[in-house]
Amino acid sequence: MAGSSFGTLFRVTTAGESHGPANVVIVDGCPPGLALDVADLERELARRKPGQSKLVTQRKESDAPEILSGVFEGRTTGTPIAILVRNEDARSRDYAKIADLYRPGHADHAYDAKYGVRDYRGGGRASARETVARVAAGAIAKKLLEEEVGARVLAWVAQVGEIVAEVPDPEAVTLEAVEATPVRCPDPVAAQAMIARIDEARRDQDSIGGVSTIVATGVPAGLGEPVFDKLKADLAKALFSLPAVLGVEYGIGFGCATMRGSDNNDIYVPGDPAALRTMTNRHGGMLGGISTGMPIVMRAAVKPTSSLSKKQPTVDRLGQPATIATEGRHDPCLLPRFVPMAEAMVALVLADHWLRWRAMGFAR
Amino acid sequence: MAGSSFGTLFRVTTAGESHGPANVVIVDGCPPGLALDVADLERELARRKPGQSKLVTQRKESDAPEILSGVFEGRTTGTPIAILVRNEDARSRDYAKIADLYRPGHADHAYDAKYGVRDYRGGGRASARETVARVAAGAIAKKLLEEEVGARVLAWVAQVGEIVAEVPDPEAVTLEAVEATPVRCPDPVAAQAMIARIDEARRDQDSIGGVSTIVATGVPAGLGEPVFDKLKADLAKALFSLPAVLGVEYGIGFGCATMRGSDNNDIYVPGDPAALRTMTNRHGGMLGGISTGMPIVMRAAVKPTSSLSKKQPTVDRLGQPATIATEGRHDPCLLPRFVPMAEAMVALVLADHWLRWRAMGFAR
Amino acid sequence: MAGSSFGTLFRVTTAGESHGPANVVIVDGCPPGLALDVADLERELARRKPGQSKLVTQRKESDAPEILSGVFEGRTTGTPIAILVRNEDARSRDYAKIADLYRPGHADHAYDAKYGVRDYRGGGRASARETVARVAAGAIAKKLLEEEVGARVLAWVAQVGEIVAEVPDPEAVTLEAVEATPVRCPDPVAAQAMIARIDEARRDQDSIGGVSTIVATGVPAGLGEPVFDKLKADLAKALFSLPAVLGVEYGIGFGCATMRGSDNNDIYVPGDPAALRTMTNRHGGMLGGISTGMPIVMRAAVKPTSSLSKKQPTVDRLGQPATIATEGRHDPCLLPRFVPMAEAMVALVLADHWLRWRAMGFAR
Amino acid sequence: MAGSSFGTLFRVTTAGESHGPANVVIVDGCPPGLALDVADLERELARRKPGQSKLVTQRKESDAPEILSGVFEGRTTGTPIAILVRNEDARSRDYAKIADLYRPGHADHAYDAKYGVRDYRGGGRASARETVARVAAGAIAKKLLEEEVGARVLAWVAQVGEIVAEVPDPEAVTLEAVEATPVRCPDPVAAQAMIARIDEARRDQDSIGGVSTIVATGVPAGLGEPVFDKLKADLAKALFSLPAVLGVEYGIGFGCATMRGSDNNDIYVPGDPAALRTMTNRHGGMLGGISTGMPIVMRAAVKPTSSLSKKQPTVDRLGQPATIATEGRHDPCLLPRFVPMAEAMVALVLADHWLRWRAMGFAR
Repeated sequence: MAGSSFGTLFRVTTAGESHGPANVVIVDGCPPGLALDVADLERELARRKPGQSKLVTQRKESDAPEILSGVFEGRTTGTPIAILVRNEDARSRDYAKIADLYRPGHADHAYDAKYGVRDYRGGGRASARETVARVAAGAIAKKLLEEEVGARVLAWVAQVGEIVAEVPDPEAVTLEAVEATPVRCPDPVAAQAMIARIDEARRDQDSIGGVSTIVATGVPAGLGEPVFDKLKADLAKALFSLPAVLGVEYGIGFGCATMRGSDNNDIYVPGDPAALRTMTNRHGGMLGGISTGMPIVMRAAVKPTSSLSKKQPTVDRLGQPATIATEGRHDPCLLPRFVPMAEAMVALVLADHWLRWRAMGFAR
Repeated sequence: MAGSSFGTLFRVTTAGESHGPANVVIVDGCPPGLALDVADLERELARRKPGQSKLVTQRKESDAPEILSGVFEGRTTGTPIAILVRNEDARSRDYAKIADLYRPGHADHAYDAKYGVRDYRGGGRASARETVARVAAGAIAKKLLEEEVGARVLAWVAQVGEIVAEVPDPEAVTLEAVEATPVRCPDPVAAQAMIARIDEARRDQDSIGGVSTIVATGVPAGLGEPVFDKLKADLAKALFSLPAVLGVEYGIGFGCATMRGSDNNDIYVPGDPAALRTMTNRHGGMLGGISTGMPIVMRAAVKPTSSLSKKQPTVDRLGQPATIATEGRHDPCLLPRFVPMAEAMVALVLADHWLRWRAMGFAR
Repeated sequence: MAGSSFGTLFRVTTAGESHGPANVVIVDGCPPGLALDVADLERELARRKPGQSKLVTQRKESDAPEILSGVFEGRTTGTPIAILVRNEDARSRDYAKIADLYRPGHADHAYDAKYGVRDYRGGGRASARETVARVAAGAIAKKLLEEEVGARVLAWVAQVGEIVAEVPDPEAVTLEAVEATPVRCPDPVAAQAMIARIDEARRDQDSIGGVSTIVATGVPAGLGEPVFDKLKADLAKALFSLPAVLGVEYGIGFGCATMRGSDNNDIYVPGDPAALRTMTNRHGGMLGGISTGMPIVMRAAVKPTSSLSKKQPTVDRLGQPATIATEGRHDPCLLPRFVPMAEAMVALVLADHWLRWRAMGFAR
Repeated sequence: MAGSSFGTLFRVTTAGESHGPANVVIVDGCPPGLALDVADLERELARRKPGQSKLVTQRKESDAPEILSGVFEGRTTGTPIAILVRNEDARSRDYAKIADLYRPGHADHAYDAKYGVRDYRGGGRASARETVARVAAGAIAKKLLEEEVGARVLAWVAQVGEIVAEVPDPEAVTLEAVEATPVRCPDPVAAQAMIARIDEARRDQDSIGGVSTIVATGVPAGLGEPVFDKLKADLAKALFSLPAVLGVEYGIGFGCATMRGSDNNDIYVPGDPAALRTMTNRHGGMLGGISTGMPIVMRAAVKPTSSLSKKQPTVDRLGQPATIATEGRHDPCLLPRFVPMAEAMVALVLADHWLRWRAMGFAR
């Protein structure tokens, strides 16, 4: 298994490089009867698309998905769903000059070490282009969650550089608030500051990092498995599998390091045992690796784009000194386009775990 | 698959509850010819054992492992290795009083929601007792890494409460420095402060959180798979699968959020392309999800123990208010015992990925 | 993955060699709430046990299973169930003389080629001793099938040498009829002839082959997956994974080769579409790889035991000519003990596929 | 997992229905550096293609494969290889009349029972059309085997109806001899009789069954895993996963039932222990589930096509009596087109197990 599959029951397999003919994904295990059409996919892909605003890469892709199988008369059949998205605006000549250079912060050298060869055009399989396939699959998972489970996944940009959004109630953020600006931050004041910061980085031929928050609501208690397939573990794997992620935390996260247990524990609110809530949510909706019914709140740290048109010192394939300026179209900040990718990955994990729980018979 | 297996080629399956007869692990996929005996396991289990110092739980377990299969004349045969560790000091009566209560910060309620039943004694499968099986398996992985790969995994306690260790060169920390004190912090000054802090929490019938650093050195470039099975993703899943982990980061981690790309990129040092190094290591030894040959540096945030002998308000199984004081023997701080668990999990991931890379033919 | 795990949701992992301390199995994924105790396991293990009659090996094992986890107050918890069966009567000295010889028909040479080493005692992991773990796991699967699905798996000896049992209605065979004689053939006349034939082989220091029939009734329509995980494919893998199996067929099997389509098709009987039956059952209960609701009827060809006390020519590890007489206790005919092994494997497959179907939502 | 993936390291995932837009396969885990281009795929697909002779279905498909990823400058990159094959000649109107009927011998009813819905057009996912994706993947596996392992897989038609080919030395059959006639039987006399028999069935609006032999030569000793992933078990699963297979055997197969052990054992020929051979090959090249270096010889029984233009009685979706004549283009005999499908599946298994053995370090 060369790492291009994800999930146990709701299983996703992708293929495709940045400058190859196309990206494709096969979703195997989606239950039958779910209404699905191309518009469901386009909606999500549009949020991920390059060229959507000045804050992101200007590569032009229509990202028009084609459903090749698994849907009949508007509903899933239970057989695998294949989706194809062709690459249109691959400017491979931009990369020819750097075919023998190792771009700092990229996987060029690592791929050579791993395989002995690499498709250098546009970063090959290491490029974020492959995420188009994941977002398409995530659209299906999201639909399943909404229609069968009543769960929703929403992400936004919580931080860019030192600018931190104020979001007093993560559970109350709406998609409209997130989509109100191209930077996908629901705090309108912070959003403007973030846009300015990103623009500044872009004009400096540089890039800037940030943090994304992802919240899943309506997730029933009981998802996740003890020991290895804890929900937090699979969610972390999902987020860390996205390009540029250097840290993941949930609930109070790294803040727990300085806490006393008596302060950190979330105390139960007396009430209906079938809908138990806690007064606080420092555990971000999961205990012992299993969802509790409280909102699942996670954060992912996303590094600044490594590709810069600004010159950087580096080495070539023989280890000799060189300089590099990665021409091409790059995101000055990955956060806005990261949001739909993160939602997709979290949706895939929740869909998979929900099916696994259903297999178990839903608590006797 | 109910989540008790981990790994693709070096595959580990565990079973066992806190107060059941025993814990068992099957390691399937260890190559033949590796020298292995019970002493290798005992060495690691001793570091994880309860009762090792005043800083941890006083439950008495000898944790004597028995190898049931897979080893012949002192070497692995290539067939599955089963290891049994019996439970001796299960004081189930301590838990009888709380069988119908939901302990805050624990998975009691989540298990009921998931399964409809739970073995409440000592926390059942949710208890950290299951980690004895993981540490036994990790001992085998560590041996494989040391003897076949030349890699080493070392973890330590980097933070307890607000006390942060100063470790200027993570690559240079030694096992001896870590084991010099019961708190497993290689900074002797911070170690003493940490011991005092933990003792204070214990006397307050409370607990305190912290952070562990894990470093893997000697890992060749090329481990990890593009897209889903990125090395950082599998390592994160491994660490998050351990009890009490609320955050994981590698390299500069969440610090990348405020960075510019030009500052964050690790610049290559000209030299032998087969042993390329960078001047800095903000990417913690992994790029594009693949190891680069630089030390892999990760950090895990570990929450304060939720079980407290101090009284806490909670609810019972019917959602009615109650109070709880979890008698029994608890760790006032999980960090010292977390160290060998984290090493074990990281070793399992590296062993697995190394075998996967060997399957691919080691870069042509 | 070194091949010691089986199943996707109802997942079984085994370990243990013929002359090692013990065999162990972990069943991961059994739903919670199933009544289970040691007696359920003992019942099945007794049918597999050596020494049960003169027709089989005289190795003395009590095969007393110990449940180490996953059961609480008489019911499964949903967490993994580990079962331990110790080896008692390993007569390793019987094998010391042949440590450097390759027994014909055995895996000795193949193991050396694969691993470079082998535990020669009693055949190591290649010995049928490992099936004790499978039969224990199969007992749990059988219980799940009976109590949750209403399905039953029954196998018997259909042929020994040229003696073929007459079983006009496979669906009507009872466990009592099978267990009426030590040879496990429900045709009393053929049973006696078979016993005589096996005894003859034993006195000749030889062995004899045969065929086992396995029938599963009460299996709902809808189990199995199109393409790769067809029910017939997983059932065949399950049966072929047992020692000594050289052929598997279902329904009319190899008899279809000479048939015309118009004769081979099973014609539907008009009736309740929720309980459709066909007039014949040449397709053995499966179409397109999916169960139809008709009885699943399979046959497995089991070779004569390769270990003979009679002298045979062979080679040693250096390829030099030698002779071998495998002292030790061997089955003159594998069929009687094969019956519970085959039932166990078929039960594991059906349990797994039933859980997978339940995950899908049971046909909308 | 909905059963559309196959393999552990050399992993294949397919999607596509008979009358949907296209079939697609993703091959994940092919090592880098293998020379590969569309011609390699076309060669195999041409042997599977409909319309290749009068003996098979006359559906017109060009089956032109498009490589979407995983190949750069003529060699595999180690990243997943996606292949697309579009459907061109889907005559869905042929199926509209039978949308509510259950065709005897087909999975129509089973799909309804499983999913509650089915894409009836051309048989949907149950149609043999999906095998175009498998044969494309198998072409890559074959190349890997030939170039890296020195192994070759060859299949042929051994029997049609009562006509049995005489093939005295399976190891010596050549591809040229197989391809000499459209029926793919290397015995020229039997080939002619078979062609006549198939033609007769076609004129009778009927179909005829048969048997295919598959031989793998040059397979090193050591492939396959003890217990569950025995090579014979994975090969059987592979063959049984193909449409229309009702029986599989290897070596002497069902013939072992009447054998004595002393006659059935294959006796070793003294010689180089690194290249041990046996005098006979009743075990078909595998012992204890592991390859021995002798040719792997298997046979698969293939039923007569169930779709007949001749009228047959059946029922509709409500269980009411009806008659059906499956218009459309059908194979009067599946055997000729089965040959490349069987080779593909066997090649996939061998490639996967070879990579797994390489991961283990190739016998120390």
